Amino acid sequence: AGDADAGAQKSATCQACHGAKGKSAQPLYPNLAGQNAAYLDRAILAYQKGERSGGQAEVMKAFVAGLSDSDRADLAAYYAGLTP
Amino acid sequence: AGDADAGAQKSATCQACHGAKGKSAQPLYPNLAGQNAAYLDRAILAYQKGERSGGQAEVMKAFVAGLSDSDRADLAAYYAGLTP
Repeated sequence: AGDADAGAQKSATCQACHGAKGKSAQPLYPNLAGQNAAYLDRAILAYQKGERSGGQAEVMKAFVAGLSDSDRADLAAYYAGLTP
Repeated sequence: AGDADAGAQKSATCQACHGAKGKSAQPLYPNLAGQNAAYLDRAILAYQKGERSGGQAEVMKAFVAGLSDSDRADLAAYYAGLTP
């Protein structure tokens, strides 16, 4: 399982679109707070693998390109632990 | 904007994986309760357009294939209005 504290440290890039506490200001973007960690990890992986296109997929792919397996797990743990 | 009551009537198929009230029992699947309606609508559309692959994308594509624009909006309004 990921380290939520480490995830918080790695979340700066995410916050512009997904909100300071995982609640998006822009309704076209998903809230992340309280989402299932396993899903979040898999969703980031999907962008890394090019499994998503359209919408903001190219933006997401660029943002997550450099994340390691543990980075994904840490970010997932962090957002899953926030109050939705 | 969609009609949440109509969305509730259309949500039976969704509930097996996403939970009776939009909280998934399986952590690999996303919670939908309280998610932004605009994002939910766009995510369903992404599956309809074949913009997502991997994971459960083929399953989702099959489930949402027959939804109209108003079906999408109604489902999005319904899940956005549930307590996360």
